Amino acid sequence: MQIVVHKDGPRGNHFRRAGPRQRVYFEPDEVHACIVTCGGLCPGLNTVIREIVCGLSDMYGVTKILGIQGGYRGFYARNTIDLTPKSVNDIHKRGGTILGSSRGGHDTMKIVDSIQYRGINQVYVIGGDGSQRGAGVIFEEVRKRGLKVAVAGIPKTIDNDIPVIDKSFGFDSAVEEAQRAINAAHVEAGSADNGIGLVKLMGRYSGFIAHYATLASRDVDCCLIPESPFYLEGEGGLFKYIEKRLKENGHMVIVVAEGAGQKLIAENMKEMGQDASGNALLLDVGLWLSQKINEHFKKNKTTINLKYIDPTYMIRAIPSNASDNVYCTLLAHSVVHGAMAGYTGFTVGQVNGRHCYIPFYRITEKQNKVSITDRMWARLLSSTNQPSFLSKQDVDDAKVEDERTAKLLDGSPSNPKVEDKVASSNSNGVK
Amino acid sequence: MQIVVHKDGPRGNHFRRAGPRQRVYFEPDEVHACIVTCGGLCPGLNTVIREIVCGLSDMYGVTKILGIQGGYRGFYARNTIDLTPKSVNDIHKRGGTILGSSRGGHDTMKIVDSIQYRGINQVYVIGGDGSQRGAGVIFEEVRKRGLKVAVAGIPKTIDNDIPVIDKSFGFDSAVEEAQRAINAAHVEAGSADNGIGLVKLMGRYSGFIAHYATLASRDVDCCLIPESPFYLEGEGGLFKYIEKRLKENGHMVIVVAEGAGQKLIAENMKEMGQDASGNALLLDVGLWLSQKINEHFKKNKTTINLKYIDPTYMIRAIPSNASDNVYCTLLAHSVVHGAMAGYTGFTVGQVNGRHCYIPFYRITEKQNKVSITDRMWARLLSSTNQPSFLSKQDVDDAKVEDERTAKLLDGSPSNPKVEDKVASSNSNGVK
Amino acid sequence: MQIVVHKDGPRGNHFRRAGPRQRVYFEPDEVHACIVTCGGLCPGLNTVIREIVCGLSDMYGVTKILGIQGGYRGFYARNTIDLTPKSVNDIHKRGGTILGSSRGGHDTMKIVDSIQYRGINQVYVIGGDGSQRGAGVIFEEVRKRGLKVAVAGIPKTIDNDIPVIDKSFGFDSAVEEAQRAINAAHVEAGSADNGIGLVKLMGRYSGFIAHYATLASRDVDCCLIPESPFYLEGEGGLFKYIEKRLKENGHMVIVVAEGAGQKLIAENMKEMGQDASGNALLLDVGLWLSQKINEHFKKNKTTINLKYIDPTYMIRAIPSNASDNVYCTLLAHSVVHGAMAGYTGFTVGQVNGRHCYIPFYRITEKQNKVSITDRMWARLLSSTNQPSFLSKQDVDDAKVEDERTAKLLDGSPSNPKVEDKVASSNSNGVK
Amino acid sequence: MQIVVHKDGPRGNHFRRAGPRQRVYFEPDEVHACIVTCGGLCPGLNTVIREIVCGLSDMYGVTKILGIQGGYRGFYARNTIDLTPKSVNDIHKRGGTILGSSRGGHDTMKIVDSIQYRGINQVYVIGGDGSQRGAGVIFEEVRKRGLKVAVAGIPKTIDNDIPVIDKSFGFDSAVEEAQRAINAAHVEAGSADNGIGLVKLMGRYSGFIAHYATLASRDVDCCLIPESPFYLEGEGGLFKYIEKRLKENGHMVIVVAEGAGQKLIAENMKEMGQDASGNALLLDVGLWLSQKINEHFKKNKTTINLKYIDPTYMIRAIPSNASDNVYCTLLAHSVVHGAMAGYTGFTVGQVNGRHCYIPFYRITEKQNKVSITDRMWARLLSSTNQPSFLSKQDVDDAKVEDERTAKLLDGSPSNPKVEDKVASSNSNGVK
Repeated sequence: MQIVVHKDGPRGNHFRRAGPRQRVYFEPDEVHACIVTCGGLCPGLNTVIREIVCGLSDMYGVTKILGIQGGYRGFYARNTIDLTPKSVNDIHKRGGTILGSSRGGHDTMKIVDSIQYRGINQVYVIGGDGSQRGAGVIFEEVRKRGLKVAVAGIPKTIDNDIPVIDKSFGFDSAVEEAQRAINAAHVEAGSADNGIGLVKLMGRYSGFIAHYATLASRDVDCCLIPESPFYLEGEGGLFKYIEKRLKENGHMVIVVAEGAGQKLIAENMKEMGQDASGNALLLDVGLWLSQKINEHFKKNKTTINLKYIDPTYMIRAIPSNASDNVYCTLLAHSVVHGAMAGYTGFTVGQVNGRHCYIPFYRITEKQNKVSITDRMWARLLSSTNQPSFLSKQDVDDAKVEDERTAKLLDGSPSNPKVEDKVASSNSNGVK
Repeated sequence: MQIVVHKDGPRGNHFRRAGPRQRVYFEPDEVHACIVTCGGLCPGLNTVIREIVCGLSDMYGVTKILGIQGGYRGFYARNTIDLTPKSVNDIHKRGGTILGSSRGGHDTMKIVDSIQYRGINQVYVIGGDGSQRGAGVIFEEVRKRGLKVAVAGIPKTIDNDIPVIDKSFGFDSAVEEAQRAINAAHVEAGSADNGIGLVKLMGRYSGFIAHYATLASRDVDCCLIPESPFYLEGEGGLFKYIEKRLKENGHMVIVVAEGAGQKLIAENMKEMGQDASGNALLLDVGLWLSQKINEHFKKNKTTINLKYIDPTYMIRAIPSNASDNVYCTLLAHSVVHGAMAGYTGFTVGQVNGRHCYIPFYRITEKQNKVSITDRMWARLLSSTNQPSFLSKQDVDDAKVEDERTAKLLDGSPSNPKVEDKVASSNSNGVK
Repeated sequence: MQIVVHKDGPRGNHFRRAGPRQRVYFEPDEVHACIVTCGGLCPGLNTVIREIVCGLSDMYGVTKILGIQGGYRGFYARNTIDLTPKSVNDIHKRGGTILGSSRGGHDTMKIVDSIQYRGINQVYVIGGDGSQRGAGVIFEEVRKRGLKVAVAGIPKTIDNDIPVIDKSFGFDSAVEEAQRAINAAHVEAGSADNGIGLVKLMGRYSGFIAHYATLASRDVDCCLIPESPFYLEGEGGLFKYIEKRLKENGHMVIVVAEGAGQKLIAENMKEMGQDASGNALLLDVGLWLSQKINEHFKKNKTTINLKYIDPTYMIRAIPSNASDNVYCTLLAHSVVHGAMAGYTGFTVGQVNGRHCYIPFYRITEKQNKVSITDRMWARLLSSTNQPSFLSKQDVDDAKVEDERTAKLLDGSPSNPKVEDKVASSNSNGVK
Repeated sequence: MQIVVHKDGPRGNHFRRAGPRQRVYFEPDEVHACIVTCGGLCPGLNTVIREIVCGLSDMYGVTKILGIQGGYRGFYARNTIDLTPKSVNDIHKRGGTILGSSRGGHDTMKIVDSIQYRGINQVYVIGGDGSQRGAGVIFEEVRKRGLKVAVAGIPKTIDNDIPVIDKSFGFDSAVEEAQRAINAAHVEAGSADNGIGLVKLMGRYSGFIAHYATLASRDVDCCLIPESPFYLEGEGGLFKYIEKRLKENGHMVIVVAEGAGQKLIAENMKEMGQDASGNALLLDVGLWLSQKINEHFKKNKTTINLKYIDPTYMIRAIPSNASDNVYCTLLAHSVVHGAMAGYTGFTVGQVNGRHCYIPFYRITEKQNKVSITDRMWARLLSSTNQPSFLSKQDVDDAKVEDERTAKLLDGSPSNPKVEDKVASSNSNGVK
């Protein structure tokens, strides 16, 4: 078995390219694979399951594939089902995961005992950063016990907050489905006097879904994300902007990521004499913002019609769209090729357009965030015309932060070496 | 002008059949029509607007059609737009109402002043029972002033709670769209251990949407509506049923109409020392039920995963589906034919498969309700296998109530005169 | 066993009302049911299969249910699968039929031999008029052999051309899905100079889908159906109308039912020296019309852009929508109640809003057609503004035909006995 | 004004990076922009139009924007409409182009006369390679006349066959919508004995849509594209593969790009004594293949059920999905920034993840093609299990061709310089 690492070089990081290998490590009839899905739902889970099963079966002739039910705890609670190309044939057209999922339940010893006991030699973990970290720990324990077991991950996060990789599966589908909620907010707002449609979208620590859903919709007047702190009162604040838009247009749509404004809410509750410690989860930014906006306009004796929409579960539960189906298929086939070749301790992902094998530790050491100083966020600001909520100081701070992050991430300077206005199109980058 | 009334006869009520008349009362170039939309959103509003405009224009050559903006108060706040076949050409593909809408604002004198002042002689009111009652009052005032103004209504209620008529427009689209939420609940529930998906659907006083959405989905285990009181604890109660389904199946889906269990909630809050008087609207049955179910299972030391979905605004804001588009078109053309023929004081609707002119007072005197003793509800119960929550006494009471209602409604015995097992197919009923 | 017949009375035909009966004829554990689907695809087939299985299982505790694969010939070719509530749980979300289907293959003796041999005592046939006729023949043979076998049908026709019943399942879904094709035609036509979008919809002998899809879309300028013959050249002809619409509007959309203009095509081909005898099926009206229109405008030196869309298979293959799901569920439960009560020789359907048991012979003796002299077709004409293509003589002929048909059908005068402008709303008609 | 060129360097081509510039060339109130759409429909046209208008207006305060109607010939036929943020507000939710489009009509002199006569100084051309070539010619003429007019293009091709750029707008939406047709084919095939679903997708010279739609669907057994010649008879031929799949599975789905097999068809028709010269466009590969497959199995006395679906117009006419909406927005804003900065003679596109300004000549000199020797096509082959239809010789030839092409394209060796199994993740590639 070969442990996947990565190399740093003068021209950046290098990850091992994914794909079939000349030499296969496992004999197909020796393989005993298992698949587990962990954490919250995300469009494409079933496609990934299907394609690991079909990939193992069609490309390598593997027949023993086990589905672990209900997340990590399924290993030792011993709920499993046999997975065959026939049994998974249509599952990619359904949302959710046929294996069931859960958070937590990661008892390393019990899990590796179960792997050993069952004679499993390929473990496929589909899950978020916590679950990938868990997979890393399983991998370490497996190595310590000297087992010939390939441990491989497929990173799953609807929020797109996993670093290194270009994009996580399900993200595209989520942005697409979010359009429905934004549309409804737009229709509701537009049909009422001083109508405000407020949509909360996923994104606890990073606002990618809100960001892209806003860019896609063209109907959103304001997008609030965790990476860009905002304030309510005064010049340049949210209330002033709402007043302005209602005056100009008669209605508006606000999109807010679930993790936006958490500091503001905490402060605000402290002021009100409420203790928010410990119940961070209870602070639903959507409900809080609805209340604040309503209060503000009540105070100003202006009648507004605010409609709050939380489409979270309706988005998470859809099947993946075509583009995610392609992506899930490639990820699944990549991970199968890797495990069959005897690689272990890795997760798969597309990096700069190419599918790679990435060591677990690289994708769990930090989170991917919307950079509020880059072009994409600038494009959003210029298209919504919303205030930046930033002082000069904020911008400088953010830039420093971005740069430091980039360095940590890549071991390379954050600024592309290309000249300011020129992008390179050498054949390297062609997918 | 001819005031629309209805006749009671030995064989039931008789309404005037809708359709074009040989003699037209208004000269096309004299007509000055206006359209107003009132109350909450409902799929199909724009189709009705479009078809009144196109109907007046294409079928009668009418050119002066005014859109009153923002509901009844738009009459005297003087916001209006000119409506032409060109300007309304594509609006039926959008949700909401291009005219805007609002609740209340019904100042009869000001409205009729505005009608008189603007020289309007055809008033089309698209709105719920409150708005139709308002239209009735306008009609009375118009008559008192001796104005030659036709006042006509198109009843709008997404809840299908308007009596006499077969079905209200938008209902079908709402049931269709509700499937998305139920599907999401089903996927979420099915992907978790002891997963419970809870979906709140519209229906303050009548549970038609919940009822039909449940029948359509085939994934719902329990449907709670205002017409069928339920209880939580003990044998035959909701908690026992949930426990049973989770045991059998591992997950379940509950659909609850927004008006369900109001009495139960009030009692429950009273017990808890909370005063619910006056804020009935604040008692969100979905949130309340989520809390109660979570508390119950916490007490029982069972871990459940409850996901609560409230798709209300996402349903209201969709454009109407094909079947509602047909229905809206027929309603709009009917009302145009009626007004052009000089009828006034009526609303349009399909009654037993035929489009009719119905006096305002007939559709506002009571509400349409799901009859929990008839076949459709029995079909639901037999398909979900949920408890009926009824004692023998309850059933008898409900029957008496239904009968009394039916008598009030029709002036005729509630039981069809056909023999028990025989339905009549005479040509009368052919659409 | 009780053979279902119907009674004629002075007030029309009477069919036995569908529903559960006090006395059940079959012991649940004696029941050996089978289900077969025949003919072309139609949205809702899987819902009907699912609900027969779940109905038998949940409501009566029946466990032995066989799916006959591949239509009638599956009986003797012996392809069967066991159907359980679990195996059919999700099938209503897929289009097509999980049992497979085929045309023909109806060998009565072999089929009844197979029924007898397998010990089947409930036969559920889901199919069109040909298959229902086949079911009738099976029923006769079963009776002749003295077998205690209930033979029951659920009529299936996407074209809605089965008489007596209000509507066939799948029709609503088909009309809904047809909107996509009409929309595409509208967009293509509107984006080109002299753009013509031509959409062919199902309907070999009756134009209901084209009719309702046109009413629903509001974008169609002309609808051609088998019941309303049309002509191309001269005053009042199709070409003149197209020219007029292109002049007024720059583009237009035509919807044509597949069976429209068959006589015209035949004549036209005869003139051209081609023999159309025997290959009626090959005369695709859509392709023929495209060619004729293109030729006409080429002759007139006018450049047009005609785009022809045939969405037939894309419509047939969708899963049923919510409203059809409700209908399919009710039909399936009705037929199960009927067979369990020991009725035989019947098909189920909604007649004037009520679910009934109808003898096979009543629904196969003629076809349901769009009446071009009634209100619905008049509504279409007034909304598209297309020519009626009718001389006075045609209208009179059509009326006579309609009347005679109605008499044959109902044994009652075709004209409703109500006064011209009054519709009756007695309680009889309550759903 | 600054003419956009590109630089070749030792490390590849370099294009000017898109984005706002410090110095703006045009005063906003001097700008007189025009937009024209040319060629066939493609999802996203209206989004691009909307965002050029909104971009010019919101970001630069430009107010004079003209829409040229009906493609290039609209310039001199003088059909124009004024475009304002309000008038284009909702157009991105509709398919097609509100400006109308046409092929050809490119009379350079007349067009530049019109530009000069109207005082237009920014020309935005949305169109395929032919139209971009046309824009290049306009740009040359404008330069010759010494006019201060920025000529800029946004490349449009639903087939994704424009070189250099990563992806063309509308492609994602097309692949998504193609799933419907493939699904229908799958349902039809699966519901019949020996069912074959055949779907023709767009792609005259390149098979990207067929390729990605196949990867996305997971239901396709065979994908035929122009880049990969195939043959029907004998070992390794299509017929043998169809026979095999029908035997294994009972049904199958084939996807064929419209340009696939053109050589084969031509040869075949020649053999049959038919002359195909000159009417290459008439050779519909879908119809031809249907006929050939039917003939083959008839000869073999095997009954098959082939259903042929051509969803072309239904795909082209849809509105763009979320991901294309984002892409269209970025392209439109890029092109606006470029023109406002005084660049001319360029088209915009994403190259290796970055938005760039590309000289017209670079994107019209060749076509983008599916490389049948690269990983993506290998992934397709391994997922469908279809034959490669290739001899060893073919593979070698294709490789040589690919290499030569790559050289022509990039002026750089086609093989990435990275080691075989290692992909580089330097910061260059960050979007």
